[in-house]
Amino acid sequence: MKPNIDSILTVGSLAFDTIETPSGKAESVLGGSVNYFSIAASFYAPVQIVGVVGEDFPQSHLEWLASRKIDVRGIRVEPGKTFHWVGSYDQNFNEAKTIHTALNVFETFDPTLDQTHRSAPYLFLANIDPTLQQRVLDQVASSRLVACDSMNFWIKGKLEELKKTLKRVDILSINEGEAFMLSGERNLVRAAEYVRKLGPSVVIIKRGEHGASLFTPSGTFIAPAFPVGQVVDPTGAGDSFAGAFMGYLAQSGAHRDLASSNPAQWDHLLRRAVLAGCVMASFTVEDFSVHRLMRLQSEELHARQNALMKMMAV
Amino acid sequence: MKPNIDSILTVGSLAFDTIETPSGKAESVLGGSVNYFSIAASFYAPVQIVGVVGEDFPQSHLEWLASRKIDVRGIRVEPGKTFHWVGSYDQNFNEAKTIHTALNVFETFDPTLDQTHRSAPYLFLANIDPTLQQRVLDQVASSRLVACDSMNFWIKGKLEELKKTLKRVDILSINEGEAFMLSGERNLVRAAEYVRKLGPSVVIIKRGEHGASLFTPSGTFIAPAFPVGQVVDPTGAGDSFAGAFMGYLAQSGAHRDLASSNPAQWDHLLRRAVLAGCVMASFTVEDFSVHRLMRLQSEELHARQNALMKMMAV
Repeated sequence: MKPNIDSILTVGSLAFDTIETPSGKAESVLGGSVNYFSIAASFYAPVQIVGVVGEDFPQSHLEWLASRKIDVRGIRVEPGKTFHWVGSYDQNFNEAKTIHTALNVFETFDPTLDQTHRSAPYLFLANIDPTLQQRVLDQVASSRLVACDSMNFWIKGKLEELKKTLKRVDILSINEGEAFMLSGERNLVRAAEYVRKLGPSVVIIKRGEHGASLFTPSGTFIAPAFPVGQVVDPTGAGDSFAGAFMGYLAQSGAHRDLASSNPAQWDHLLRRAVLAGCVMASFTVEDFSVHRLMRLQSEELHARQNALMKMMAV
Repeated sequence: MKPNIDSILTVGSLAFDTIETPSGKAESVLGGSVNYFSIAASFYAPVQIVGVVGEDFPQSHLEWLASRKIDVRGIRVEPGKTFHWVGSYDQNFNEAKTIHTALNVFETFDPTLDQTHRSAPYLFLANIDPTLQQRVLDQVASSRLVACDSMNFWIKGKLEELKKTLKRVDILSINEGEAFMLSGERNLVRAAEYVRKLGPSVVIIKRGEHGASLFTPSGTFIAPAFPVGQVVDPTGAGDSFAGAFMGYLAQSGAHRDLASSNPAQWDHLLRRAVLAGCVMASFTVEDFSVHRLMRLQSEELHARQNALMKMMAV
């Protein structure tokens, strides 16, 4: 990582996941949105996590994160058990089916930011209750670049709160199915137009094995997924996409005011950041949990970025 | 169209289609693979059709095709009715469901080529019985560039015959679902590898609203679909894709021996041709039948090609 890169603050879940996919099964492996996000982002920029775990969460993993220059001091260890998600995927790997959710210590999660967190110029609100996302926004300066994620659960259950969050963010990163649900449209172009009117000037619609589409004030960018030989587990693909995306922006110094001062350069950096996200996600899905990301080398990352660029060249 | 461009011969169906999609319904409209193919290709190169219609097929449409410099002298008008397909699409527009097929005069279709047909340097075998595809190949010089299409019906019912066809073609253009069925793989990369081993050195896997992927000896190219605001009817998208693709190659003079003499240039032209295909398909789906293609202007085509290039630029 280059020196003097600004930090990204991320707020969300750390978890144990029990997952079944057509490729196999994993029992109580390390998961959670900010876990995936922070490891992915740490290839590009310093990260600070605000989250909560139970006493059963391995201290060794927090130490491993810290060894990557990920600031884990905002992760509170509370009495009780860590959030546990049980889910499965069908043969298309497209949508996760939740079998069981045990919120545990995450149920009373109330993100509290200290002074270091409040000054990070980049913020990623992972997929949590939109009320909590707003509580984070209340604590930070309005001058930072804010991206957020959400999911069908909140679109169905807390739509008005989610809309309040969206009014306050610059970038929304969301799945295609969720974009359709949020907009009531079954068409990508119209869904993106609808969502941009809700607040975020930049909308990224993630399309799994089909890549991601970026909608900005300057236009549309369609990024392919890097085609992997075997998908093992798509869990965390979206969060690691977001991690590399935000990391790339932070590394490039793409501050919030760039959007208004130089729209063309802003658009260019967003496109590159989306590609960084696609490449990172392609590694994530090659193994369960954060296993592939934990053993990922920068050289592999760069090689695959170059390979993807070649696959797009005309 | 530029002068002195070599002709493309195409062999396949002309039909009436009755179609229901989430956007509406069309009754006995003009369809058939070579109808879509030839109109699309005619934006780039001269086309010759070999096919058969019944006495109910409108002479006015054959005249309209002829006015586009499409050679329709190889279309035989036989006593009886024209092939009629009745189908529908679900909300995803991804796969056509056949409700009814009346082969009519197409049942005894036996493609006979005259001397002009035999000398066309480009050949596209549309989706017909692989036995008929071979009968066409038996009549032409082996030096031409041959592309073909197929479908699940032949993969299930005439796999061995289809494999014989594939051994004799340069390029296979096929849907993702069909590539999975043909290869027994559920993964794009592995499916393409499998299919290339069956014969065609170039494989194009069409992915509907997600674009198309090209696999050549030089590598992989991932082309996005042009995102349209409303899909009306996806029928003919694949055939018009193939038409623009082959038309682009013919216009560029991409002869068969280019593949071995200059693989890099061959790969480059194939990529451009795939994009031409994606753009043409995006017009086709905007209306029922060949209606959109019939009123398509060259200026619109070029504008959308430029727009798609901008959506891919990094």
